[in-house]
Amino acid sequence: MTSNKQVQDLLEQVARGELDVETARDQLIDAIRARPFEDLGFARVDHHRSVRQGFPEVVLGLGKTPAQIAAIATAIAERGSSVLITRATAAAYEAVRVAIPQATYYSDAAIVTWRQRDVSEGKGTILVVAAGTSDLAVAEEAAVTAELMGNRVDRLYDVGVAGLHRLLGERTRLESARVIIVVAGMEGALPSVVSGLVSAPVIAVPTSIGYGASFGGVAALLGMLNSCASGVSVVNIDNGFGAATVASLINHL
Amino acid sequence: MTSNKQVQDLLEQVARGELDVETARDQLIDAIRARPFEDLGFARVDHHRSVRQGFPEVVLGLGKTPAQIAAIATAIAERGSSVLITRATAAAYEAVRVAIPQATYYSDAAIVTWRQRDVSEGKGTILVVAAGTSDLAVAEEAAVTAELMGNRVDRLYDVGVAGLHRLLGERTRLESARVIIVVAGMEGALPSVVSGLVSAPVIAVPTSIGYGASFGGVAALLGMLNSCASGVSVVNIDNGFGAATVASLINHL
Amino acid sequence: MTSNKQVQDLLEQVARGELDVETARDQLIDAIRARPFEDLGFARVDHHRSVRQGFPEVVLGLGKTPAQIAAIATAIAERGSSVLITRATAAAYEAVRVAIPQATYYSDAAIVTWRQRDVSEGKGTILVVAAGTSDLAVAEEAAVTAELMGNRVDRLYDVGVAGLHRLLGERTRLESARVIIVVAGMEGALPSVVSGLVSAPVIAVPTSIGYGASFGGVAALLGMLNSCASGVSVVNIDNGFGAATVASLINHL
Amino acid sequence: MTSNKQVQDLLEQVARGELDVETARDQLIDAIRARPFEDLGFARVDHHRSVRQGFPEVVLGLGKTPAQIAAIATAIAERGSSVLITRATAAAYEAVRVAIPQATYYSDAAIVTWRQRDVSEGKGTILVVAAGTSDLAVAEEAAVTAELMGNRVDRLYDVGVAGLHRLLGERTRLESARVIIVVAGMEGALPSVVSGLVSAPVIAVPTSIGYGASFGGVAALLGMLNSCASGVSVVNIDNGFGAATVASLINHL
Amino acid sequence: MTSNKQVQDLLEQVARGELDVETARDQLIDAIRARPFEDLGFARVDHHRSVRQGFPEVVLGLGKTPAQIAAIATAIAERGSSVLITRATAAAYEAVRVAIPQATYYSDAAIVTWRQRDVSEGKGTILVVAAGTSDLAVAEEAAVTAELMGNRVDRLYDVGVAGLHRLLGERTRLESARVIIVVAGMEGALPSVVSGLVSAPVIAVPTSIGYGASFGGVAALLGMLNSCASGVSVVNIDNGFGAATVASLINHL
Amino acid sequence: MTSNKQVQDLLEQVARGELDVETARDQLIDAIRARPFEDLGFARVDHHRSVRQGFPEVVLGLGKTPAQIAAIATAIAERGSSVLITRATAAAYEAVRVAIPQATYYSDAAIVTWRQRDVSEGKGTILVVAAGTSDLAVAEEAAVTAELMGNRVDRLYDVGVAGLHRLLGERTRLESARVIIVVAGMEGALPSVVSGLVSAPVIAVPTSIGYGASFGGVAALLGMLNSCASGVSVVNIDNGFGAATVASLINHL
Amino acid sequence: MTSNKQVQDLLEQVARGELDVETARDQLIDAIRARPFEDLGFARVDHHRSVRQGFPEVVLGLGKTPAQIAAIATAIAERGSSVLITRATAAAYEAVRVAIPQATYYSDAAIVTWRQRDVSEGKGTILVVAAGTSDLAVAEEAAVTAELMGNRVDRLYDVGVAGLHRLLGERTRLESARVIIVVAGMEGALPSVVSGLVSAPVIAVPTSIGYGASFGGVAALLGMLNSCASGVSVVNIDNGFGAATVASLINHL
Amino acid sequence: MTSNKQVQDLLEQVARGELDVETARDQLIDAIRARPFEDLGFARVDHHRSVRQGFPEVVLGLGKTPAQIAAIATAIAERGSSVLITRATAAAYEAVRVAIPQATYYSDAAIVTWRQRDVSEGKGTILVVAAGTSDLAVAEEAAVTAELMGNRVDRLYDVGVAGLHRLLGERTRLESARVIIVVAGMEGALPSVVSGLVSAPVIAVPTSIGYGASFGGVAALLGMLNSCASGVSVVNIDNGFGAATVASLINHL
Repeated sequence: MTSNKQVQDLLEQVARGELDVETARDQLIDAIRARPFEDLGFARVDHHRSVRQGFPEVVLGLGKTPAQIAAIATAIAERGSSVLITRATAAAYEAVRVAIPQATYYSDAAIVTWRQRDVSEGKGTILVVAAGTSDLAVAEEAAVTAELMGNRVDRLYDVGVAGLHRLLGERTRLESARVIIVVAGMEGALPSVVSGLVSAPVIAVPTSIGYGASFGGVAALLGMLNSCASGVSVVNIDNGFGAATVASLINHL
Repeated sequence: MTSNKQVQDLLEQVARGELDVETARDQLIDAIRARPFEDLGFARVDHHRSVRQGFPEVVLGLGKTPAQIAAIATAIAERGSSVLITRATAAAYEAVRVAIPQATYYSDAAIVTWRQRDVSEGKGTILVVAAGTSDLAVAEEAAVTAELMGNRVDRLYDVGVAGLHRLLGERTRLESARVIIVVAGMEGALPSVVSGLVSAPVIAVPTSIGYGASFGGVAALLGMLNSCASGVSVVNIDNGFGAATVASLINHL
Repeated sequence: MTSNKQVQDLLEQVARGELDVETARDQLIDAIRARPFEDLGFARVDHHRSVRQGFPEVVLGLGKTPAQIAAIATAIAERGSSVLITRATAAAYEAVRVAIPQATYYSDAAIVTWRQRDVSEGKGTILVVAAGTSDLAVAEEAAVTAELMGNRVDRLYDVGVAGLHRLLGERTRLESARVIIVVAGMEGALPSVVSGLVSAPVIAVPTSIGYGASFGGVAALLGMLNSCASGVSVVNIDNGFGAATVASLINHL
Repeated sequence: MTSNKQVQDLLEQVARGELDVETARDQLIDAIRARPFEDLGFARVDHHRSVRQGFPEVVLGLGKTPAQIAAIATAIAERGSSVLITRATAAAYEAVRVAIPQATYYSDAAIVTWRQRDVSEGKGTILVVAAGTSDLAVAEEAAVTAELMGNRVDRLYDVGVAGLHRLLGERTRLESARVIIVVAGMEGALPSVVSGLVSAPVIAVPTSIGYGASFGGVAALLGMLNSCASGVSVVNIDNGFGAATVASLINHL
Repeated sequence: MTSNKQVQDLLEQVARGELDVETARDQLIDAIRARPFEDLGFARVDHHRSVRQGFPEVVLGLGKTPAQIAAIATAIAERGSSVLITRATAAAYEAVRVAIPQATYYSDAAIVTWRQRDVSEGKGTILVVAAGTSDLAVAEEAAVTAELMGNRVDRLYDVGVAGLHRLLGERTRLESARVIIVVAGMEGALPSVVSGLVSAPVIAVPTSIGYGASFGGVAALLGMLNSCASGVSVVNIDNGFGAATVASLINHL
Repeated sequence: MTSNKQVQDLLEQVARGELDVETARDQLIDAIRARPFEDLGFARVDHHRSVRQGFPEVVLGLGKTPAQIAAIATAIAERGSSVLITRATAAAYEAVRVAIPQATYYSDAAIVTWRQRDVSEGKGTILVVAAGTSDLAVAEEAAVTAELMGNRVDRLYDVGVAGLHRLLGERTRLESARVIIVVAGMEGALPSVVSGLVSAPVIAVPTSIGYGASFGGVAALLGMLNSCASGVSVVNIDNGFGAATVASLINHL
Repeated sequence: MTSNKQVQDLLEQVARGELDVETARDQLIDAIRARPFEDLGFARVDHHRSVRQGFPEVVLGLGKTPAQIAAIATAIAERGSSVLITRATAAAYEAVRVAIPQATYYSDAAIVTWRQRDVSEGKGTILVVAAGTSDLAVAEEAAVTAELMGNRVDRLYDVGVAGLHRLLGERTRLESARVIIVVAGMEGALPSVVSGLVSAPVIAVPTSIGYGASFGGVAALLGMLNSCASGVSVVNIDNGFGAATVASLINHL
Repeated sequence: MTSNKQVQDLLEQVARGELDVETARDQLIDAIRARPFEDLGFARVDHHRSVRQGFPEVVLGLGKTPAQIAAIATAIAERGSSVLITRATAAAYEAVRVAIPQATYYSDAAIVTWRQRDVSEGKGTILVVAAGTSDLAVAEEAAVTAELMGNRVDRLYDVGVAGLHRLLGERTRLESARVIIVVAGMEGALPSVVSGLVSAPVIAVPTSIGYGASFGGVAALLGMLNSCASGVSVVNIDNGFGAATVASLINHL
């Protein structure tokens, strides 16, 4: 029992008489007694993250071995928490699947997940907009993460600013989103244009797509930080996961 | 009539019988007929901004003469819209006050404002956190902007990470905010620490405070973009206004 | 006699019998005998520039004293060539006016000019588009330069991408230009959007307008170099003069 | 029917009596009714590009799978438009050839093309100048692109500024070009020198050729942006395609 | 006899009558007569390093062949000095083991060592703190180096600032260290927080862990250089070895 | 009573019978009851810094008004703590002197201090080495800070690496220091050379002295971070204060 | 006959009566008639380089195919000129050897050469100094190039500034050189120290050796450009060839 | 007696019988006994520089007060050495003139000098080439320095690469120089072109002249480091003095 939703479910069960008070009390005391983190030697799994921030600890696969990833994922899953691993290779997925056979691999997004019942639903729709076909991996990292965090997600891809009619034809979908994630490489102009069309907050994600003076996404990053549209905030280059987390926090308000 | 709130007020007046249908119709038709922007030669004032984005066009004082600023502000005010001028010098304020005597100057924040009745209230509190005394100008730009946009604002200043007890003693105020703006220069570590303590979205504002390898705020900016806490998004260096706009959009959801 | 136009005028006079062959011959031989440049000690004035490139040597005022500027301008004017001085201060203008009383000062553009009869007309219209009010100095440098070089110039200012309707309402002017110069600071997204709407070549000029991560125009420069629209080429930050020269060369083809 | 040329051909056929009015009308109405883009899920093919910009949508191969490239190319070809794929690997070519057997692969230029009858001819010659043998890939990307877009192309390679006599011996070819593309790595000085010799507009392409302080083409890029010759504009590092597009737009004026 | 400790051991033997004066004198004269370095052609092994700096010359494996590494290591070992090779591949280890069978390979730390009796003990404990699991390689380079240099080492891993309770629960270990090495990538905020909690000097090591705007460790490096906590000094990115050397020098004071 | 030294003095007075137990107890209880920081509105003065870190909070004058500086200094002095203000202008000194007449201004170092009896003595000598005459301001900031923190300080100035004999002639002073601070601009090579000559830890301070490619101290900073001598750690550009703090922490071990 | 030396040899043969005037005249006329460069399509071999600059055209192997390299080398050799190919792979060597069996491959220096009789001798010794073992590839590129250009070369390797005694012990060799090339990575301090010890001009070559904040040689490059010793000039990172060319030009004065 | 020339003059006087042996011996012993440097507290004047490097210590005025400059200059002059102060303000000159009335101020070059009889003559001519009028200050710093160091100097100014005929018309002067200094800002292409025309070594000096993407001389610096002409070496931005020192060392070989 490591999430707000699990505590609320338990209390509602008690209120409905489906669970007796003693059992509920024991479960709650166990949860409170448990150490807030678990020391695996090479990692300290943060089991209170979900209480503090509404979603259990997420595993960044980058720079960890498959064995390390699998051990951390198992520790999370055993507490009844949902598992989310980003930047996961196929090898990492294979290692995780040994312990968690139900885990799913989204290869476009490089994400491994197993959703348990600890995630509460967001209120509106998160729209993920991508400028070009080459930005899809980052856009999918954002979209899959947002879905796993309990949000309805709509996707609108390949609507770069050099062909504005492709974007302007989709104003209904733009306006019906509660939060918008805009993923773009190259000059990173799309968030400014999108933000000028809507009143929803826009989370901009620069991608490392491009060549030459794109400098691995720096051009897009700078474009977004200097946006002349004032409803835009920015996350790190290629950080679809971070954008989805911010968007999900907002969508759960 | 250039904001959502003004349209709603009018319809509610009609619903309550306080306004007859013909008058309301005429006012609405006038508003629809009006050009969406006004061409001053050197500037095109965007009178539909408020309809699209919930707040009228804001004037960035940087790089404009006092006379230009006053002309744009007057055009906004005459439509019944609230005026907000950022990066405003005292000279700009003097120029504006000729046409808008009720305008107020917040010298700490370098902001000139005149609030009219076109702003709707946000739902919760926006907390503005600043790492050091030197960050106050940017923090005040954020706080005053957020207030003018209809939000309750709480301020928590000089709580840098080198003296954690100053921050940890204020967890109640941290946890009661709906959105948090964190302003920090130097290494820009404060947003990561704050985000780890709360479930509210955190908007990080790097400041240009520092010297040497702070490179005018770049160190703080990079620190925030690379935050290991996943609920953080970032705006441009010293862009207190932008952070407040994003926070206000979220707080009005 | 230092420009193509002057040679052509002379030949046409001969053809029409308005000038006898001996006089024409002597003038041509004088021109051919003249040294192609004049050595002022601190500068070598290039009197053949006009023959090679269609416009006489232009004086970049930056880093030269008013006395140096006046001496160079005088040497140019005495050959019958038009004078164009960019980045000219008021003090430079005063120094030039002593020798060339007819010279004009465009203070917005920081340009001193005196047009003589050596400039041929361009074929179509050059449209100068500027994203914001703060970009006007650079836009005016481009516009005044293009006019002096014999081009019809149209101006379209304050049409940034955060309020697209201001730009989309001007498609007729966009489409009727033969060449378009787009001036923008901050994220520099406007050239991509403009280029997507027209078939004219677009010359993009980043400006140093902005703050923080705009890095004195670098963000806009990178945005333009990475434009996803393929009809865009770029000149140096704040180089309105260079953009106008390129546009004028194209417009004279 | 997606290009200006196709519309003109049809009207000329009608004028010459070779096509009856009803058939022409039906074809035109079909073209107008067609959606301006086609949604392939991962990409939105822009079928109106040719009408707006004189050449159909071009496919940037970088970052797309062979299957994605082939699908986009097929959608373009089926509308009767010419196909141009840049940064194409041999694998991409194989995938395209399944659907479009007539496609050609230029391995030096890494380009796949299939020219249909929708391209109008440019007016003069585009000269592609390259500083060194190592710059040939980028120079060929420019030359092949310009040819496919309907231009006569002349090539002048290995004429770097350290051996000026190699360049000065080719002034006739330099002066007979209507537009010049100059491709150079290392210090990127060649465009300045070339522009000083001609009155044609010069499009400069920095290449990533070099080592050490060339920083992947940044040295050449900066050299070109700071050119002391004023008829030079610049595109992104290694962007031969972009330079050819700009040159072709100019050459069709 | 190449270290201070060896000289002191000899003198103490003499003082205790365990070694006669003549033998001692001869050994000392031999040591003094020996050239201070040995020229291997491609390398000059510095045999006086230990006398000057308390630890023999260390071999940086990066950029050397296994054969070169083995030759240098052998020259060091033959003088009776301890061997320490950093950035050592498995192949380098194999080459070293031929000549020095007792050498040990720490694969996590990429270090090969063979400790002889020339190392004196440090006074207190060096604590190595690491922000994340991905920083372990650098942290282990620091920890293993410090151990070989004669220090007691304590390790505290995966205590990043986004989950402060993991760090705050270990204050006893933090306060009992004489010197602290803090290893962190991404935003590099951990040294500031640690330094604020203790009075020990903190040596900060940025790591290249991260992606996008971490720029291979630059973000962490800048964060540490701009630390608002004043007891922090910094070494190069990924330089666990350098941090350990500094810490060991301090711990031997 | 806010420093370790003050607590120890009190206990020793009790042990010697100079202070009765009741008075001592009351003073201690008062100290414990006092809030660890004092909120001045714009600043939170950290009164426990001395207990945690051996020296009271230091005021960075940069970016604060004289009035703010004086208010913070007064709050510190009233608790019996020593005052240290860095980057202090003459105006700041005047403001401080109103409340603290005994304060001293070191204009070379831009430091204001008032030493009270709360500072314990360091064990050895801190040597401050400076490469050139132009580095003196930073060197003096380090030397004065170290002195105020209770350390003996020796100064060795103008011993840059281009005239090695000036440095090599001072080996006795180099070798007798317990900690060495090396201040250098331009190429920043001096710390490597010094560190190779001694076994003391070296704290390197790059300065912004230089021009052109020194980039405000970046060249020196990089030189120091890449030092081939392994006993060097680095602080921010021009941060003489930070180097002195680190050196003092070490010298008090 | 493409070098100054060959012309001089011929004239001396005539003067000594070893060659009759007619034969000499014909050979000279042939040489004068020959085009100064040869167009291979992808390359223009500059056969007058030797006349202008004292050494025939050198082939930079980087970015050229083995076949291209072999074709250029053959064209050079057939004119009787010495061949020098830098950055040559083993494959390039194999391709060259087919046409020029006498060619030699220096694998440490990655150089292919074949020396013919067209090179004149330099006057003194060029000393190549290298800071570390890892810098050998660049140092050897310089040494082998200088030798082929007719210079006596002395090598002094692994004398970095952290162990000054290794350098100071070699002052005789330092002082007997006419020109000194200093190769160093990391902080690049060695040229400053060497230049302070001698009166010969020093050519500094930064290498890309290092990690982290060495940024591929940028730290060393900046260190050398900011050298406080005034007899130092610098070439590109890893450009041993360029340093040798400059040194050889000087040594032939 | 602090220079090689002074020693040689004395010996020649002895050889010619103009000076008796005892006097000569005493003067030599005095010179040998004198400390090699003089400690002024804030500076250590290096009196052996002339013996080691052929010219006495030079004073960099940047960052020193007029009083410091005058004190150092006096110490140098009193030993009979020539005085050279670079980056000297008029105020520094006034301070120097009090002690050395014969000193001369070159305001274009910002240099104060007083030449004594300790300088030997160089062998050939040093040619200083400058690209534009704005580069004159740096070019004059180089020219005046070279003259004071005993060299014949020729000046060739305003011969930028955009008007090649201005340079190509001066080949005689180019070819008659023994060493060439080339000063250029903006794209820095002139050294490559000059080096391709001559066999003399070229010392390139980038200047900070330019704007926008010239980045204070970085563009020119990179252009020169990446020169495709191999006889070019480079000094720091605006370092005319350094270039002259290198050129003078070469010209004295």
